[in-house]
Amino acid sequence: MKDKNIAIVLDAMGGDNAPHVTVEGAVEATRISPIKVILVGDEKAIEKELKKYTYNASQLEIVNTPHHITMEENPKEAIEKKPDASIVLATKLVAEEQGNALVSAGSTGAVILAAAKNINRILGVHKSALAASYPTHNFQKRQDIFSLLLDVGANIHNSHHDLVHFAYMGATYAREIKKIENPTVGLLNIGSEPYKGGKTLSQTYAILKTLPDINFIGNVEGDKLMLGLADVVITEGLTGNIALKVIEGVASSAQKLLKQAFRENFLWKMGLMMLSGGIRKLKNITDYQEYGGAPIFGFNKMIIKCHGRSTSLAIKNGLLLAAKSVQDDITEQISRYITNYEYNHAVHDVEV
Amino acid sequence: MKDKNIAIVLDAMGGDNAPHVTVEGAVEATRISPIKVILVGDEKAIEKELKKYTYNASQLEIVNTPHHITMEENPKEAIEKKPDASIVLATKLVAEEQGNALVSAGSTGAVILAAAKNINRILGVHKSALAASYPTHNFQKRQDIFSLLLDVGANIHNSHHDLVHFAYMGATYAREIKKIENPTVGLLNIGSEPYKGGKTLSQTYAILKTLPDINFIGNVEGDKLMLGLADVVITEGLTGNIALKVIEGVASSAQKLLKQAFRENFLWKMGLMMLSGGIRKLKNITDYQEYGGAPIFGFNKMIIKCHGRSTSLAIKNGLLLAAKSVQDDITEQISRYITNYEYNHAVHDVEV
Repeated sequence: MKDKNIAIVLDAMGGDNAPHVTVEGAVEATRISPIKVILVGDEKAIEKELKKYTYNASQLEIVNTPHHITMEENPKEAIEKKPDASIVLATKLVAEEQGNALVSAGSTGAVILAAAKNINRILGVHKSALAASYPTHNFQKRQDIFSLLLDVGANIHNSHHDLVHFAYMGATYAREIKKIENPTVGLLNIGSEPYKGGKTLSQTYAILKTLPDINFIGNVEGDKLMLGLADVVITEGLTGNIALKVIEGVASSAQKLLKQAFRENFLWKMGLMMLSGGIRKLKNITDYQEYGGAPIFGFNKMIIKCHGRSTSLAIKNGLLLAAKSVQDDITEQISRYITNYEYNHAVHDVEV
Repeated sequence: MKDKNIAIVLDAMGGDNAPHVTVEGAVEATRISPIKVILVGDEKAIEKELKKYTYNASQLEIVNTPHHITMEENPKEAIEKKPDASIVLATKLVAEEQGNALVSAGSTGAVILAAAKNINRILGVHKSALAASYPTHNFQKRQDIFSLLLDVGANIHNSHHDLVHFAYMGATYAREIKKIENPTVGLLNIGSEPYKGGKTLSQTYAILKTLPDINFIGNVEGDKLMLGLADVVITEGLTGNIALKVIEGVASSAQKLLKQAFRENFLWKMGLMMLSGGIRKLKNITDYQEYGGAPIFGFNKMIIKCHGRSTSLAIKNGLLLAAKSVQDDITEQISRYITNYEYNHAVHDVEV
């Protein structure tokens, strides 16, 4: 699909700084791309923000609704209480084909639940997956240093079929969006041997190693996650969520510890001042969440979840990423892989 | 029990540098403590090492066996193939009350499997647990900066009863060994709300909050693990293993990234040289595994698992830690808590 025919639905009220940064991000995206952005939210608040900019009116459309869901609300209760909240309406618009993909910086739980309610899943897929990029040592010398981890919390537990689906989702994304020819896929596990990790993980291992269209490199232990041996690491939601948050927590701890230790000593303090540029660079790498959106896979329309603290730059990047996903037919490609897998798997089921 | 009546069984052949460091560690421990150490392993190799030192012969005893299990062997197969391997014999000696506790720097899998085969579990306990100390920001201003995480890989999945048992094991250890009066206990989870994390975790939460003898502070998310809000964090083996290894992996990555970034720039290089003392200090904190042993809970005899790369200092510390655990009646105390819990729980089962 050509850019100028692509419409991205944006939850204009989602995120800590909405609608200020969402509107600014939409304006910026439409300046450098012919895509259309459908802003869903409080019309008056959106128009007030729009007045600050010059923009091409044919590329921005507002769909008005007075309600939205905040970060503090229980997602499930809020969706039931506010059937016309911006994120709920946004998922409906996408489901009705008024837009080709969805971007939101609102509550992750609300985005996933609203999508599950209104947008069809890809045929054969039982569970959606939230994917996160995390920084690595780039062992494979890729253009970017990030690997993809999924699921990081759309689910708690998953079946081995879910995990195989996650492998196709992540590999398709790495191939199309990151332009990695034959992306390596690893399974987050407690040990490297095929039999490790209990029934679900050992069954997943046994299936993945037989699949010709997945470049499976085996189990990846927690301490090897940062090496970047695998472009895509698949895991159940509970383990993925804990792994991702531990990475964030330790990275932030290392910075604090550094400052604390160096405060104690004058020589160290001097050294730290000399290093401030390097530390800023490190911080940029670890603040990766600010710069991109996390794809939510499994629905027949692409969803990009931006961080709640997103800047307008992050929203702009999220919109362009969503447009690129539409251009590259990501959901259709995932659908073809999974249909093919389900067909073959039903015929030759793997014994573990 | 008084120190001079305590005998610790040491797997003299376990670890990367055995029997060199195990013998040296045993000699050092008996120099500063009246405990007896029973060295299990190849008599000739042990005697050759012993010749290097002066020691009190009444405190060191050798039990000879020509076989031992290496780190590379499959633990399950090795135990079946070598019924007189040093770790197997060591667990038997402890089970026969020839020693009061066991220390090994050998393969974790072999230690746990040999113990499961030969040493009785505490009444009511279904699963043993491997505990690891990890460094935190020491939010509670404790004397040491470490919190205890368990299980980190003796199991894959656990029931809510197992997790409650783990809470008693960890809290008893923190109270007796770390001298923390009313240790805080947290549950590693995907979110802070009581209903999060699926059935096992929400049931565990519901039970823990009703227990008067556990200072339960609720769920701890991955990014909060390093704050040290909880002295003891409980989790199933798969999630605990992944969390611990991610901590290790990110800490080592941060060091590498630092060096890499700073190599690019002369000013940074200078700064780094000035900071070398501080970085060494940081490294000492993150190399925590060298300095202590990880307790294995659940058996009616205490087991301390030292790191495979242990130095003689680590072995000495492991032996003294094992002796202290015997002195403090750790296993008996855990047994009393669990018996009491099982009794009360059978009467007032918690509905979730």
